[in-house]
Parts: sequence; structure tokens; C-alpha cells
Amino acid sequence: TLHLGIVGYGLVGKELVNQVLASAKGLESELGVRVEVAGIARSKTMVLLKPGSDGGLDGGAWPAGEEPVDLEKMGSHLLAAAAASGGKALVVDNTASDAPAEMYEKWLAAGASVATPNKRAGSGPYPRYEKIMAAAAAGGSHFLYEATVGAGLPIIFPLKNLIRAGDKVEAVEGIFSGTLSYIFNTWKPGMKFSDVVKEAKDKGFTEPDPRDDLSGTDVARKVTILARECGLKIELGDVPVKSLVPDALQDWSPADGANLGDAFVEEIKAYDDEM
Amino acid sequence: TLHLGIVGYGLVGKELVNQVLASAKGLESELGVRVEVAGIARSKTMVLLKPGSDGGLDGGAWPAGEEPVDLEKMGSHLLAAAAASGGKALVVDNTASDAPAEMYEKWLAAGASVATPNKRAGSGPYPRYEKIMAAAAAGGSHFLYEATVGAGLPIIFPLKNLIRAGDKVEAVEGIFSGTLSYIFNTWKPGMKFSDVVKEAKDKGFTEPDPRDDLSGTDVARKVTILARECGLKIELGDVPVKSLVPDALQDWSPADGANLGDAFVEEIKAYDDEM
Repeated sequence: TLHLGIVGYGLVGKELVNQVLASAKGLESELGVRVEVAGIARSKTMVLLKPGSDGGLDGGAWPAGEEPVDLEKMGSHLLAAAAASGGKALVVDNTASDAPAEMYEKWLAAGASVATPNKRAGSGPYPRYEKIMAAAAAGGSHFLYEATVGAGLPIIFPLKNLIRAGDKVEAVEGIFSGTLSYIFNTWKPGMKFSDVVKEAKDKGFTEPDPRDDLSGTDVARKVTILARECGLKIELGDVPVKSLVPDALQDWSPADGANLGDAFVEEIKAYDDEM
Repeated sequence: TLHLGIVGYGLVGKELVNQVLASAKGLESELGVRVEVAGIARSKTMVLLKPGSDGGLDGGAWPAGEEPVDLEKMGSHLLAAAAASGGKALVVDNTASDAPAEMYEKWLAAGASVATPNKRAGSGPYPRYEKIMAAAAAGGSHFLYEATVGAGLPIIFPLKNLIRAGDKVEAVEGIFSGTLSYIFNTWKPGMKFSDVVKEAKDKGFTEPDPRDDLSGTDVARKVTILARECGLKIELGDVPVKSLVPDALQDWSPADGANLGDAFVEEIKAYDDEM
């Protein structure tokens, strides 16, 4: 049995759980592996599930038995379930935040694998990155982060394999932001910048905080991740980017309870003339 | 230690051995795996090497100790070396011929992995393909054939993973032959067809037998491989293709000792008017 811990239960987390439940039978017959959701965490609360009780998650429901979020406790719950079944533990981090990344080292060292599109570990402080990589090697576990660059396209592992096979990287070229590419290709003279950003956000192209796209931070994160794959010990700040976020909004926060993305799109309307 | 058996020692086989020897130290320090060439076979002869004696292969030399080729014996030699070192055995098939494919099932079932760009297994008789896949599962070994479609680009395993993750394939579209693409893009009215084929061959774009490209067989093989990944139990003959090989040359063979590709390019000159 593969015991899954899901961190983040928004659009992506719910969809993932639905897909896991829908595919579980096929995976069991094809690969001989039972896949079970053993815990779900969101920003303030979590639920740890007993073996065989993940049917209650159907349709993205939030199960009963909620308690305050404690990622360390969730990890122990998964590892105990894996030990009991003779299986494995895997944490899927669907967030874009730093809190789960702080836990990766511990999880991996204890033998739980981590799969995530979250770019915080790969582009965060180099010493933490190095510890995470070492923990996976020491724990016999896997740190799976292919989706941090290029989404569903295989970029990172093919690059890693080319380098392992003795190739030298001379340059990496590409469009590193679908969001910025969409914005630059959609904007035409006479259009309001804020309208184009709103469109990109409504289509689901932006990061949860659109400033990560507009500031170039998201691009810089991906460049950092690929540069580290090529052996460069660089930090996020070493990647030069030019920000499109108005100075006044760089430290802005939305009102309590407001959706960050929606509120930000309202806020930048005031800066359309500058763009 | 990973004990390698190399089948095929032409341009590709020699280059592979050189790259393995050049990368061995780096792989050992990065992955903790010693990689050693333990045997090399070519069409009529082979050499089985003692542990630590692969330095003699430097620069593509053919080592002393030649004996008649016996792929079964080579497999046993690799597996014995793996058992002695507590390591693994891997056969790399660099050929485009059927003889090694006939051995895959046995090798895989015995625990030796197989890596190859040879399309014969994936597009050969379905019952053999099925046995090869089952043998890898039973032997705990790996059948690695990513390079059979798309060369260095990751196509097969991402497709496999999408399907495992629950995606349904509606269509696969692509340019399935770099060779034909080159020929169609290069040929202009007034040019001789045979000149364009010669150019493609001289640049190393064609299969060893250019008829595999011109007849569409190479394309049909790749389509068969991908279709099987999608769950279709099809045979090579189920893929409709239109051949560019003149009828009279379909069963033609070159004179003894002649290079097949070079001789074929000479031969098709007579058919330039028909093309």
C-alpha cells in the first residue's frame, strides 16, 4: 500500500484526490500497488484517516475528524501506516508555500517520499536544498519535483539524465512563464494592463499570488531549479529579473478573508496608466 | 557494480563504450555505482571480459580473447559477474536486428535488465512483446526502450505515466521520421531523389538499411510501439504505410562485404525518373 498525505486542499488538492480515488483500482491491478489517502491538511486544519476510510473523500468532501494542522504529526501517521502495511509513505504538497518545504528533509530522511510542484524547496535557500537532497539519498526515499519546471512536460529529469550520461550543458533557453507569455501576447496598445492580468488570472494561468508571475519571481525560481540541476550553487537572488509589480504593491496585503488574486487584480487597476 | 554487456560494436557501440569509460568515475562518485563493461558482441564474434579489464577498450579497440558470438553465454557471464559482486547486469543492444530481441525474455526473466533503441521487440510479434514485458516484471529487471521513439526526447515513459495517472489518449500526432522529414523538406523539383537519400545517409539520419525509412517500416514500428503503450494489441502489419522503395529493390541484397547503405544508394539511382 502507498499511503498518501495530501498537503493543500484547494482546486488542485481536491482534483488530485478525485483522480487518485478514480485510478486506484486500475493502479492496483496494473502495478500491484494499493493507493490510499491517509491524511489531508489545509492551511489551519487537517484530518488523519484510518486505513480504508478514504472513500468519504469522494467529490472533494472534507472528511470528519478535523484537528489543528501539524505536519510533523501527519508525517508520523503516514510512516506508521506504511510500517503497519509493509508499504510506503508519500506526501504530495499541492501548495505554493514554504511551510511544507520546511518539513521535506525530515520526511525524506524518515523514508517518506515527497512529490510536489511547489518551487520553494528547489529555489529556496541552497543549504536547505542540499539537506533535502541528502535526506532523500539517506532515507532511500524520492524527492519528486519534475512539475516545478514545465508543468506536465518532462524537463528536469531528462536534463539530469543527460548530465549523468556525460553531456555538458552550454545553455538552457525557453519561455519560462506561460503567464507572462500569455500577458505579453494578449496585450495590445489601448488595452488596460489590469484587464489582461485579470483575464490570465480568471483562466487559471497565474500563481495564487499573481505578483509571483509579474515580479519575475516565478521565472527566477525555475531558472534557479534548472541551474542547480546543472551543478551551480546559486540562490534565487542571483537571477536578475525586472519586476512588473508597481512599487507600492510590493508589500501590499489584501483585507482579511479576501482572495489574494482577486483583490490584487482590483488593486492594480490604479496603476494602468504607468504600465 | 553494474556489469554491462554491449551487443553491437559499430559507430554507436564504440561511442557508447567510450562514454561509459569516460563517465564511470563520475557515476561512481555521484550514484555510488561502479559501471564496468563485462562483454562485447558483434555479428559473428564476442569477447567476455574479466572484472576490471575494460580499460583495454579505450578508443574503441576490439579486445583480445575473441570467441564465436553466443548471446546466451554472454548473458550467463554477466549474471555470474553480478552475482559475484552483489551488483546488477544490464545488456545494451545497439543493433537494429532481431537476434538480440529473441534473447530479451530470457535475460529479463533471469534478472538482467535490457536497454535498447532497437525497435524489434516493441514492434515485433505481439506474443513475444507480451512475454518480454512479463519477464521484466517477473525478474525484477527493467526493459528500457525510451529511445525507440523520439531518440533522446522523452516520449514513451511520459505517455505511460499519463495513462497510469488516469488520462485517456484520444490521438497521438507527430513527425514519426526525421529521415523522411529531412528528405521531403530537402527535395526540390529538379533534384534527383537518390541524391537526397544519399545526403540523408551521409549525415547519419537513415537506419542502417535505408529501406526501413523509405518503406515506412520505421514509422510503422514507432506507431506500433506507441499504440501498444496505449493498450492496443496491434501488429506491425496493422499500420498502413505507403512505400517509397522501388518494387524491384524490396528483396534486393548488396554484394557480399559491401556496406548495405552505400550500396543501396548506388542502386536507387536507376529509379530517379520514377520518383
